[in-house]
Amino acid sequence: MTSFDHETGLSRVAPPTAEGERAAYEGLFGLFGDGWLVGPAVNGGLVMATGLAGLGAAMDEAGGPAEAIAFSAVFPGASTPGPVLVRPEVMRVGRRISTGAVSLLQDDGDGPVERMRMIATLADLGEHSEPLHRQSDVPDLPPPDQCIVASRAAGEFAAAIAILDRLDLRLDPATAGFGVGQPSGVGELRGWIRFADGREPDVASLPFFLDSFPPVTFDLGAYAWAPTLEFSGHLRARPAPGWLRVRLTTTNVAGGLFEEDCVIWDSTDRVVAQSRQLAGVRMPSGGQG
Amino acid sequence: MTSFDHETGLSRVAPPTAEGERAAYEGLFGLFGDGWLVGPAVNGGLVMATGLAGLGAAMDEAGGPAEAIAFSAVFPGASTPGPVLVRPEVMRVGRRISTGAVSLLQDDGDGPVERMRMIATLADLGEHSEPLHRQSDVPDLPPPDQCIVASRAAGEFAAAIAILDRLDLRLDPATAGFGVGQPSGVGELRGWIRFADGREPDVASLPFFLDSFPPVTFDLGAYAWAPTLEFSGHLRARPAPGWLRVRLTTTNVAGGLFEEDCVIWDSTDRVVAQSRQLAGVRMPSGGQG
Repeated sequence: MTSFDHETGLSRVAPPTAEGERAAYEGLFGLFGDGWLVGPAVNGGLVMATGLAGLGAAMDEAGGPAEAIAFSAVFPGASTPGPVLVRPEVMRVGRRISTGAVSLLQDDGDGPVERMRMIATLADLGEHSEPLHRQSDVPDLPPPDQCIVASRAAGEFAAAIAILDRLDLRLDPATAGFGVGQPSGVGELRGWIRFADGREPDVASLPFFLDSFPPVTFDLGAYAWAPTLEFSGHLRARPAPGWLRVRLTTTNVAGGLFEEDCVIWDSTDRVVAQSRQLAGVRMPSGGQG
Repeated sequence: MTSFDHETGLSRVAPPTAEGERAAYEGLFGLFGDGWLVGPAVNGGLVMATGLAGLGAAMDEAGGPAEAIAFSAVFPGASTPGPVLVRPEVMRVGRRISTGAVSLLQDDGDGPVERMRMIATLADLGEHSEPLHRQSDVPDLPPPDQCIVASRAAGEFAAAIAILDRLDLRLDPATAGFGVGQPSGVGELRGWIRFADGREPDVASLPFFLDSFPPVTFDLGAYAWAPTLEFSGHLRARPAPGWLRVRLTTTNVAGGLFEEDCVIWDSTDRVVAQSRQLAGVRMPSGGQG
């Protein structure tokens, strides 16, 4: 089993906790390890992918289409390594389009605490990706072997970003200047990504890849961590095997908040996913960036 | 009281329904009239604004900041004129950032049925809009008196769009060709908007304005109605009084789905809100549009 599938896997069997606690738990159970961390927190993309795995299982059981085509999430708290409880809610089962919600909880010692809440729209993505009328232009990128390995660009930060070991992430040299203290100031990161263990991308992993790059604000010289407040993604096609091409941009930065837009193309140059998140940032002083 | 405030107003007092039904209802009560319809359905923006009014009231009562800065919604069913029940849920109260969810329900004869579910991030927007570092460029538009009144552009469709009477909506002539069967094919609509009764824009009405224009796919020659599957918006500043400037674009159209991006600038040219929705479209035949 690949690392991603192990990490997002869920079971109906509760972990061995005290009887009293177990009684309060109903849902699907998982376990976050320490291999997918950014600092002390489990990567938000992995949390979303885990939640969608639970909702997809519930929707499949209810007889509805089970691939997310759109999803939106808020994060009342950061997820940490340890057991997780996933509570899917089937809201509406349609023949072509279904709707649901899902919560992901962890026990903080005093009982379950919500880490993520998501709403989602599910369908058969195979039926909703053709014909292609128009899509975002594919960004020009040097081939992966001429790009910069992210763990090298991250320099001293790399040690705190465990998740980099799970990924093969290559940054376009034109947008990797932040690694040597020379951000372009454009507000854009471009690069290639795939799992380090060779697992191919699929619909289940796209929500993760949408949140797998460094914050785009690195390219504006803001090197602090950028906590996601709200995240919204669209999945538009099942990805072909191979490298994913990723572009992150930000346009509106004000009041300590910015939007990060992400678009992902698969190896056939097809747009397979896009997202927008609102996140927090502490801009370097110096006024209008 | 203005029309918008009347329509989105909520009360703790249940409408006079049969005793048995009333017992099942807990939440805030409202009433959708027939002045804000698009075809037979209440405009989705009005539904979202009503839901956020309920969540804001609950958050205020819980002692948390009560202005939405980000919100995401799904629509299990279309809202229709008649009583509505709003059920807010305070998920997390923070000093600066709070998180919540809200459901909007209507009785379809067999009990409450969910019409909209939303998650949202709330804050004091005054504390989160300055300083301004960068924002989307303001689109060049002819002044409102040189633009085309939407109800005129809509032609025969106008009668089915009751909501046009509530709005003063002026389209840039360059993007209003759909009204005479000559869409530009670019996938962009631009224009000005304000309430017809002179009510000024504010944070409460921005979620409505984000979903108040005709579908951007009109500019691609797809004149069918475009049902929203999932909607996500960011509010970035409190709008100044006066006209709002609006730009709608779409880039990814495939498999009967498209994303509609909306940006709104206030009369001081400040970006006050932006959104992205995934919606359904039936493209005219002819292949690559």
